[in-house]
Amino acid sequence: MNTTNHQFRLARRPVGAVQRADFDYVAEPLREPAEGEVLVRLEYVSLDPAMRGWMNESKESYMPPVAIGEVMRAIAVGRVVASNNAGFAVGDHVSGLLGVQEYAYSTGQGLTKVNPALAPLPLFLGALGMPGLTAYFGLLEVGQPKEGETVVVSGAAGAVGMVVGQIAKIKGARVVGIAGGADKCRYLVEELGFDAAIDYKSEDVGRALKQHAPNGVDVYFDNVGGDILDAVLGKLAHGARIVICGAISQYNNTTAVKGPSNYLQLLVKRATMRGVMVADYYPRAMEAITAMGGWIAAGRLKTREDVVAGLETFPDTFAKLFSGANNGKLVLKVAP
Amino acid sequence: MNTTNHQFRLARRPVGAVQRADFDYVAEPLREPAEGEVLVRLEYVSLDPAMRGWMNESKESYMPPVAIGEVMRAIAVGRVVASNNAGFAVGDHVSGLLGVQEYAYSTGQGLTKVNPALAPLPLFLGALGMPGLTAYFGLLEVGQPKEGETVVVSGAAGAVGMVVGQIAKIKGARVVGIAGGADKCRYLVEELGFDAAIDYKSEDVGRALKQHAPNGVDVYFDNVGGDILDAVLGKLAHGARIVICGAISQYNNTTAVKGPSNYLQLLVKRATMRGVMVADYYPRAMEAITAMGGWIAAGRLKTREDVVAGLETFPDTFAKLFSGANNGKLVLKVAP
Repeated sequence: MNTTNHQFRLARRPVGAVQRADFDYVAEPLREPAEGEVLVRLEYVSLDPAMRGWMNESKESYMPPVAIGEVMRAIAVGRVVASNNAGFAVGDHVSGLLGVQEYAYSTGQGLTKVNPALAPLPLFLGALGMPGLTAYFGLLEVGQPKEGETVVVSGAAGAVGMVVGQIAKIKGARVVGIAGGADKCRYLVEELGFDAAIDYKSEDVGRALKQHAPNGVDVYFDNVGGDILDAVLGKLAHGARIVICGAISQYNNTTAVKGPSNYLQLLVKRATMRGVMVADYYPRAMEAITAMGGWIAAGRLKTREDVVAGLETFPDTFAKLFSGANNGKLVLKVAP
Repeated sequence: MNTTNHQFRLARRPVGAVQRADFDYVAEPLREPAEGEVLVRLEYVSLDPAMRGWMNESKESYMPPVAIGEVMRAIAVGRVVASNNAGFAVGDHVSGLLGVQEYAYSTGQGLTKVNPALAPLPLFLGALGMPGLTAYFGLLEVGQPKEGETVVVSGAAGAVGMVVGQIAKIKGARVVGIAGGADKCRYLVEELGFDAAIDYKSEDVGRALKQHAPNGVDVYFDNVGGDILDAVLGKLAHGARIVICGAISQYNNTTAVKGPSNYLQLLVKRATMRGVMVADYYPRAMEAITAMGGWIAAGRLKTREDVVAGLETFPDTFAKLFSGANNGKLVLKVAP
């Protein structure tokens, strides 16, 4: 067993896009877990857009920011290598907020056992993890698509978006994805069965929606904010539901977030805009995992992981989320 | 009886604030009502912020714009002076979209009889008319305030806002009004019984909300948009409901509407933003009018009308809505 733990600690608050110098890459000696603790060797670290928000000083957020000097917060999955906690045995696989590091100590609070026989480990960070639950409950509880309705999702080739679109198809909706680039758009239509895809990098989103959602957008699941949110607001159907899940186009802003200029369409179209916060649904996680596990097994829900090897690549790999260079759920492979 | 009808016709689409030259003031000879028509002599014309939107060329609105050369659209109340329609007798008082003019022809469609014995006629344009119904259904159906919750309303001294705040008080909420100027704020607290009022012209709205809504805003009824909407979004309680009724701060914009930069608070606070369109509730109008009529009779709901005499003052009087110079429901008195 190694005796050293490598970690990324937040060195300063990033301004705009994250840089290598925003973090210290630190080596720390490992110790035995204290009474009640387990020591987890991380295998995969989840890279999620929300992490960018956790790096900011913010009073009005749903979680305290990561403190300067603290290990960067991240969800990860790993294996218990030493246990001083009766609830976890050496060899157990677990997931939780274990941080961007090779090893993590945990009291067991917030730690969930996962069964690697059920699915490859990265899936517990994607479709069967936080992004999947976000997609499932955000779409079904907040968006509430009905059969035959038109569902539009942005960031459609990302970890949340690809699940949103496929669940919407399973529920009988017509699904239009918005993504960046011809390859992603082809993947959405040809591999995932979306009815249409709009390449926001080469198409006018408003005009394309007119073509692909001629009766208006009934449900919009928004992962990106900015101009795309405005374009969709301009094409709502009567009684539309807009699920606000994120705004990746705005997370690196050095100026104020761009609010949706077209928000008065909520009035014209009697529409609702509501936020979804996945943590609210954690008590119902098994419901979603059971449903999605079934769909995955039946080949109705496809998953895609973008696995990048090497903890030390963290800052650069994380940046792929914002350039759109990732394909599907982005994870760092930590253990060799 | 006069033989001439004076009218304001839209001469061009206003850019920014409405100017006198945006209208033609026209004299037209009166004629007998045609088969099925009534002729109404207008007594009071309602001046509402929504009229500014009706003057714009817009594809995505809830009503077609007023055409160039058309009589300016407005709700009004008047008396039938000639009838060729079995549903209406000479002497009946009616309200409807009769326009900014002295006389109007109507087929009876969209025309509602009002009983001047029940209330002074301007009330049928205010608390017992479109603004009152907007307040009643917007607050109770969309905002759904619960006893003890904090309700904040902007444009609080306006036709809609003053009714919203008083109904919220009747329903047991703590009510904070946002209005422009010390006089209006004093009126809200001392005359209408609001718990607090914030003068956005002299106070920092965010800081004042911290003081007057220390547990956060449960329901926000927004009539103004812009910076005030952002300030309230920054102070939401968990599960807040935001009722989008209008955005008077943005209607004279010559640039794009300012979208709410703080809209991601919908996510952080699991909040809902929804538009209210009063027309959806017209089938249930009697429910609101009965309730509000009862509260008015019992002295629990106070009304205030700002009556300006003279049809010919229309463009200048209309401008009072945007400078905030009106006190309560603004109406033009047309008939001498």
